[in-house]
Amino acid sequence: MSVNVYDLAYTVEKGIRESAEYAELKKQYEAVMADENARTMFHNFRDIQVKLQEKQMTGQEITDEEVLQAQKTVALVQQHDLISKLMDAEQRMSVVLGDVNRIITKPLEELYGTQG
Amino acid sequence: MSVNVYDLAYTVEKGIRESAEYAELKKQYEAVMADENARTMFHNFRDIQVKLQEKQMTGQEITDEEVLQAQKTVALVQQHDLISKLMDAEQRMSVVLGDVNRIITKPLEELYGTQG
Repeated sequence: MSVNVYDLAYTVEKGIRESAEYAELKKQYEAVMADENARTMFHNFRDIQVKLQEKQMTGQEITDEEVLQAQKTVALVQQHDLISKLMDAEQRMSVVLGDVNRIITKPLEELYGTQG
Repeated sequence: MSVNVYDLAYTVEKGIRESAEYAELKKQYEAVMADENARTMFHNFRDIQVKLQEKQMTGQEITDEEVLQAQKTVALVQQHDLISKLMDAEQRMSVVLGDVNRIITKPLEELYGTQG
């Protein structure tokens, strides 16, 4: 039964791969990766993000200092032209993916939203 | 461009709505809701889950006592025939949704997995 759902999911995957948002994201990601300074800065930023997310997921407390460090890093990377463009592209892609996810999980939301 | 992606997402939504997993989930959910004892137990269980998730998301510490209480509640609801069937149906539906999500986010994973 669900084979059908999977087939449909693959058509969405293909659609995302062919979307303007994905093309732009790919372009900006590759531009950052091609610039050593931008790449290092971006990876550093990612590392901090992942570390904080892991702490959050495992219920560890995030210190004020860590929040401050993360905010500083965000402010820093946003000033870098290539990274700032990549982050814009990520934002636009994530809007599409968020919308897709909302559409797909609608049947569940409807079910659990009733008689709740 | 993304209009196309949204159209495709709606076909997945329809596919999920028509899947055997969703039909089974709906059936089991309605059976729980129709039984006052099961419904109360299920809502109680949900409340505890949501509370713990909120704490986790906002970085608040979850006490050992809360973990223990949650485990006890899970053990209790699992013994209830109707709820246990609902949880099985939820599990099977969540496998489908997880697979769909993995398929759809593959282009992103590929992009960020390279040169990483």
